[in-house]
Amino acid sequence: MSDVNFFKADLKELEFTLFEQFRLTDLFSSPPFDHFSEEDARMILKEAHHFASEVIGPTLQSSDRTGVQKTEDGVKVPPEMHELWKQYYEGGWNTLSMSEEAGGQGAPNLLGIAVTEMMSGANTAFQMYPALTNGAANVIRAFGTPEQREIYSAKLDNGTWGGTMVLTESHAGSDVGLSSTKAVPNSNGSYKITGNKIFISGGDHDITENIVHLVLARIEGSPKGTRGLSLFIVPKFKVNPDGSLGEFNDVTCTSIEHKMGIHGSATAALAFGEAGNCDGYLLGGEREESAEPGEGIRKMFLMMNGARIGVGVQSLAVASTAYLNALSYARTRKQGAHFRDGRPESGAVPIIEHPDVRRMLMEMKSTVEGCRALIFFTVRLMDEATTLSKSDREAADALTDYFGLFIPLAKSFVSDMAVHVSSLALQVYGGAGYTADYPAEQYMRDSRIFPVYEGTNGIQALDLVGRKLTQNGGAVIGRFTGEMAEFVKALGGHKGYEAESAALGRAMEGFNVVLGKYMEFFAQDKRELVLLTATRFLESMSKTLIAKLLLEGALTAEEGLKNAAEDSQDAQYYQGKIATARFYARNILPTVFSLNEVLAEGDLSAMEIPDSGFSLAF
Amino acid sequence: MSDVNFFKADLKELEFTLFEQFRLTDLFSSPPFDHFSEEDARMILKEAHHFASEVIGPTLQSSDRTGVQKTEDGVKVPPEMHELWKQYYEGGWNTLSMSEEAGGQGAPNLLGIAVTEMMSGANTAFQMYPALTNGAANVIRAFGTPEQREIYSAKLDNGTWGGTMVLTESHAGSDVGLSSTKAVPNSNGSYKITGNKIFISGGDHDITENIVHLVLARIEGSPKGTRGLSLFIVPKFKVNPDGSLGEFNDVTCTSIEHKMGIHGSATAALAFGEAGNCDGYLLGGEREESAEPGEGIRKMFLMMNGARIGVGVQSLAVASTAYLNALSYARTRKQGAHFRDGRPESGAVPIIEHPDVRRMLMEMKSTVEGCRALIFFTVRLMDEATTLSKSDREAADALTDYFGLFIPLAKSFVSDMAVHVSSLALQVYGGAGYTADYPAEQYMRDSRIFPVYEGTNGIQALDLVGRKLTQNGGAVIGRFTGEMAEFVKALGGHKGYEAESAALGRAMEGFNVVLGKYMEFFAQDKRELVLLTATRFLESMSKTLIAKLLLEGALTAEEGLKNAAEDSQDAQYYQGKIATARFYARNILPTVFSLNEVLAEGDLSAMEIPDSGFSLAF
Repeated sequence: MSDVNFFKADLKELEFTLFEQFRLTDLFSSPPFDHFSEEDARMILKEAHHFASEVIGPTLQSSDRTGVQKTEDGVKVPPEMHELWKQYYEGGWNTLSMSEEAGGQGAPNLLGIAVTEMMSGANTAFQMYPALTNGAANVIRAFGTPEQREIYSAKLDNGTWGGTMVLTESHAGSDVGLSSTKAVPNSNGSYKITGNKIFISGGDHDITENIVHLVLARIEGSPKGTRGLSLFIVPKFKVNPDGSLGEFNDVTCTSIEHKMGIHGSATAALAFGEAGNCDGYLLGGEREESAEPGEGIRKMFLMMNGARIGVGVQSLAVASTAYLNALSYARTRKQGAHFRDGRPESGAVPIIEHPDVRRMLMEMKSTVEGCRALIFFTVRLMDEATTLSKSDREAADALTDYFGLFIPLAKSFVSDMAVHVSSLALQVYGGAGYTADYPAEQYMRDSRIFPVYEGTNGIQALDLVGRKLTQNGGAVIGRFTGEMAEFVKALGGHKGYEAESAALGRAMEGFNVVLGKYMEFFAQDKRELVLLTATRFLESMSKTLIAKLLLEGALTAEEGLKNAAEDSQDAQYYQGKIATARFYARNILPTVFSLNEVLAEGDLSAMEIPDSGFSLAF
Repeated sequence: MSDVNFFKADLKELEFTLFEQFRLTDLFSSPPFDHFSEEDARMILKEAHHFASEVIGPTLQSSDRTGVQKTEDGVKVPPEMHELWKQYYEGGWNTLSMSEEAGGQGAPNLLGIAVTEMMSGANTAFQMYPALTNGAANVIRAFGTPEQREIYSAKLDNGTWGGTMVLTESHAGSDVGLSSTKAVPNSNGSYKITGNKIFISGGDHDITENIVHLVLARIEGSPKGTRGLSLFIVPKFKVNPDGSLGEFNDVTCTSIEHKMGIHGSATAALAFGEAGNCDGYLLGGEREESAEPGEGIRKMFLMMNGARIGVGVQSLAVASTAYLNALSYARTRKQGAHFRDGRPESGAVPIIEHPDVRRMLMEMKSTVEGCRALIFFTVRLMDEATTLSKSDREAADALTDYFGLFIPLAKSFVSDMAVHVSSLALQVYGGAGYTADYPAEQYMRDSRIFPVYEGTNGIQALDLVGRKLTQNGGAVIGRFTGEMAEFVKALGGHKGYEAESAALGRAMEGFNVVLGKYMEFFAQDKRELVLLTATRFLESMSKTLIAKLLLEGALTAEEGLKNAAEDSQDAQYYQGKIATARFYARNILPTVFSLNEVLAEGDLSAMEIPDSGFSLAF
């Protein structure tokens, strides 16, 4: 393994966000999390930081350079990943926030994602293998028969086997309903699977002895579109009743994609049943007559919601280490005289002293911490719903719906920001950042897939404006605007935050105008005006919510500052947190003022242009 | 060579911009351009399009995959580049806009950059070799002794030798004044050069028998900083008085950088005089006693201004082919039902029908065409100055200063947009765009250097706010605001453009407020407020000017539309042009409204945060 380690995390910032702003410890007062203590959580964070820094971090560059190779002996991942996998599963990292019922440690997801952020920041291509394996195990646990759970989930949980989700075909990407992979019943209750799938993360590799694919396929005679899809367990090697490996199940890797980044992640094209010998097992056992159409895609969605939050977390992870690396470089790289002293004799100062570099660092810092707050806020809602689920089903369901409102933001906005922050990091390095000697260019290459996979960011925006805004008769979005209005009012009462409160109020005013306009557009059957602006609506909502969360964090920091000794590390941290919130509120948040105006205007030029008018050259 | 050719250009759009909007033909009515006709120009464009498409285009991917290799036999470029170089020089493409006096064809630069845009769009890494060679030849022609011109410029002009500009050292990047490369006089008038330089584009390769480096070095005893730097001709092989090659001149390539992109461009680290045997020749001959300090950097600037426009052109080039490739994919890729018909039975439509995809295409189209207008507008000023230079020196100088105002915009804004448009192109492709099967990921990797080299975009922004705004007592920026105000008024008189005129007026109102604030900030010695916002000021000015130029183009298109047959290709083109201007004015331009508010506010949070507050983790 290479001994170059670029991974950087800021434990103090993680702890502030978890314990002070999002009060993780409060979650420990109710079941099912009441067997955890704050002390446990802090120890787990430290261990995770150690593992990510010392074990995973040094593999970032080497696994990018080696990549995944398709050889005559099968698909080979970068060799160092075998050892990472072993230690990851020995350390039990995959079961941290799995329920105790399922044999996990039962920690809140809020703690789990803080740990995942570090693992993924150290080598996001590696982290995808256990993440997808966990996802597959969870779906089987939720919907499988007792036998399926016993055979598959257990071996996925302990890392004996790997897992995947298999949706995409070359002609069925965002439009999964076009899938043509077929399932034909065998006499023994299983199905013959035939079809070709692409872009399967972890689709073939030599880390585990078997790979369990969850495959969307259409049972003969089922309707067209997504409604007719069912979900199958299709292992690479057949599994004997005692759980031991049987013969090859006719799942062939036809190619490994050459990609811009995440070179350590095996993105496979898979042929199922080329030799007519691929068996699949309907998830949940034989289909009952009463099974509703669309059950397959619904089951897959359980995995996809988690995967979308997961993309948000890996986006945050890469953005965070990119920022911290750029900061470290800016503190040590000396170029140019101080802006108040242009004489060359005075010597060069660290570039962090230059206002334009400082502006970039603040944009990165506020964006990273804002995205962290957005994700932690969202995941905390999920944990709250879990604590409520036994005592107050209705409140838990309402929270689950509310949580769903923020999934498109956590996936889309944060993934866009991962690319943006990585790009800013590269810019801070200057020419050095464009070379492979520093990690910024890899962070940018790795992160560029985040806005694409698990539902493109455009699809997420359509989910937001097309489904989430109108959910429960508008009650979900109403809860959001209500909470925002309350905060604006409360913030206005804090001395020194009047300007920030006014800015947030103005942002929400514009946002509410857009919501009203959207209702008009729908009512007037001008839905194209909503669709044309969906992505920017998501941006506006994300920036506004992030400004709120950062300002909330600033108020928390103000409290902390009162109790911190002058010039102590704590005091410096809190001052940084406060300046960051102010920077975002005064520099980034205002960009939504005019964005909201644009959204409300209803410009149709993009629809009115004739298709040929885009270019007549071809 | 690979036969995959992704290069796409839109000749109709290039011709509209050249002949209709920027009236290239008018330039042909005055010397030194009066030996050209519109017919000549159109023929040259067609030939360039053919050469770029058929000869250069197919090398894009293969040269990226092969890259530049440092071997025991020297540095090897991708083999196909040898043939490209040969044909490029045989075709005389490098002398198109070189003056007739210098032996060139004497075309306006406006025509030259249209040609360069196509060459660079086809393979931007290749185009850098002739571009830098041309730059070096021009500097020697401008400042060299008659002997230097005769020996070097001629062989650079006909492609026998290659040329470079050599500034950067590992500790002297943006701060070139820190350079420590030394020049010690020999007894024969030449100098012994010793020092290590990095990031030299075309710094070593096997395309030409010799490479002529223009090297910034400090003559013993010269002052510190940029003032003490002189410019030397340092060939890789010494040159005999008759122009034939002599012995090796002790210029060693110590490494070739591993970069994110432009893999076909040799980015070399060079050691000068490791064996104490590297001779350099002071550009312009022996230094006169009267030589002013700083003459070296001033000479280099002649090359750098051209190089900055050059980066703008290559940025435009990559953005343009990225857009057209995404458009082509969007027209053929079918996914999802039409937004007015959600039934899966109706079948999938080309994704160009989906409003969110159309929004991305319009953002790309308007940005590409806006950047083209910005660069062509800027370069036309240079050509106008040339036509005036004999008849009205004063007007020519004023135009040259005015031209200088837009160089930072042409370099910075357009290079940022190259990355942005490439990224949008990748997003239109979806998962396919992340693979090496399509060109979008390479366009994104290639373009990411543009905001960095030839002066980072941050440095360009400082040039704009620190030098250009105050130039000639504010007369230069005053000319800009005056011309903008006139156009806003004129546009308001065009029926159907009232809203666009109002938007542009609002943008300029905000811009003028910022200009006033900047004067206050300078007067109050709060220059950090200007420096903190310089990059965003450049963005605001660029978007406002681009909106103006696109709307001007729309008025030109309105005229064309009157004379075009209904539903003709011309009519469709003009309608596209008009919709594009409206889209930019209503969707992109408004983002400067709040940006201008931010710039005027004077937020200091990025300066007030303690350095430790950025993170205490290291």
